[in-house]
Amino acid sequence: MNSLELLIKNLSKLPGVGKKSASRIAYFLLNSTSGFNDVLGKEIIEIQSKIKKCRNCGNYTEDEICSICTSHNREKSLLCVVEQPQDVLTIESTGEYKGLFHVINGVLAPLDGIGPEELQLGKLVDRVNRENISEIIIATNPTLEGDSTALYISHLFKETEISITRIASGLPVGGDFEYADKLSISRAFKGRREL
Amino acid sequence: MNSLELLIKNLSKLPGVGKKSASRIAYFLLNSTSGFNDVLGKEIIEIQSKIKKCRNCGNYTEDEICSICTSHNREKSLLCVVEQPQDVLTIESTGEYKGLFHVINGVLAPLDGIGPEELQLGKLVDRVNRENISEIIIATNPTLEGDSTALYISHLFKETEISITRIASGLPVGGDFEYADKLSISRAFKGRREL
Repeated sequence: MNSLELLIKNLSKLPGVGKKSASRIAYFLLNSTSGFNDVLGKEIIEIQSKIKKCRNCGNYTEDEICSICTSHNREKSLLCVVEQPQDVLTIESTGEYKGLFHVINGVLAPLDGIGPEELQLGKLVDRVNRENISEIIIATNPTLEGDSTALYISHLFKETEISITRIASGLPVGGDFEYADKLSISRAFKGRREL
Repeated sequence: MNSLELLIKNLSKLPGVGKKSASRIAYFLLNSTSGFNDVLGKEIIEIQSKIKKCRNCGNYTEDEICSICTSHNREKSLLCVVEQPQDVLTIESTGEYKGLFHVINGVLAPLDGIGPEELQLGKLVDRVNRENISEIIIATNPTLEGDSTALYISHLFKETEISITRIASGLPVGGDFEYADKLSISRAFKGRREL
């Protein structure tokens, strides 16, 4: 196998990149300015040493504490709990939410041996006790595991004054009943609101 | 812009990779074994210095002369003319063709200043005179430019004994009249063969 075939093979291991796209990318790299290849290659090699997880919330950051945790322009009484660090970026890209985040790095999955300890939920409780949080928005995915994790977290704060909310689930905007699954339709009805 | 955003920005410059796929790839790289990142990054940085074009046919190779030109198992009397080095790999992947290749690196486009000299067609004529070629299969793309380039090449060898052929053009296998363009349908009829 020569260098070109090896490059194509490794590119096709990337998510969403099949053999044809990998070839296309390889030919693009063969014909690009070599400055671009040097920059991209170096970025790929160094990304894991440059990006770490925020010691406070688990978000991706280049520093010890991320820019959301250190910002003075966020609503410090609002805490949004998400599954993965990338969920923070997705929610941030909407520009809708102005509070803080907490990443739990997964969902409860007892059959896979992932319990409350693995998700370091104690760290979440400690943080909520330490900071002045008035509402926890649980934004785990609307899946079976995401829902049970949300329920578990809500029980952790049952005895407190903190209001625990769950993101709305229903038909996506621009969606169509014809293509919607039964559960989403049922959730859309259950979660209906007065107009 | 931090390292993660920079990586996503550069990944989205790759062909077929939009902003969402670039993010997905970046998160994959963040969580992959760093050995994979080191290998892929190094491959991207080094690809242009490792892969050159065969001095004889223009195919991608790591040596001066490519493995197809030096092979003893090819039909040396058959020469297939293609536009790009990657076309060689595409045709090779079918395993159907056993002859030699010649890459002309483009098509005639007088309006863009690409004439016979730019495609080094003299080199093709020299090669055909030097080697013992009995058939030239012109496999430029079935586009306006590809067709006129094919016609031009056929004129170069008009006075010789060499048989000049053009790859068939028509409906793709698995295609459907409903979705085919007029030109392909017209070609399919013109190129019909006795069953």
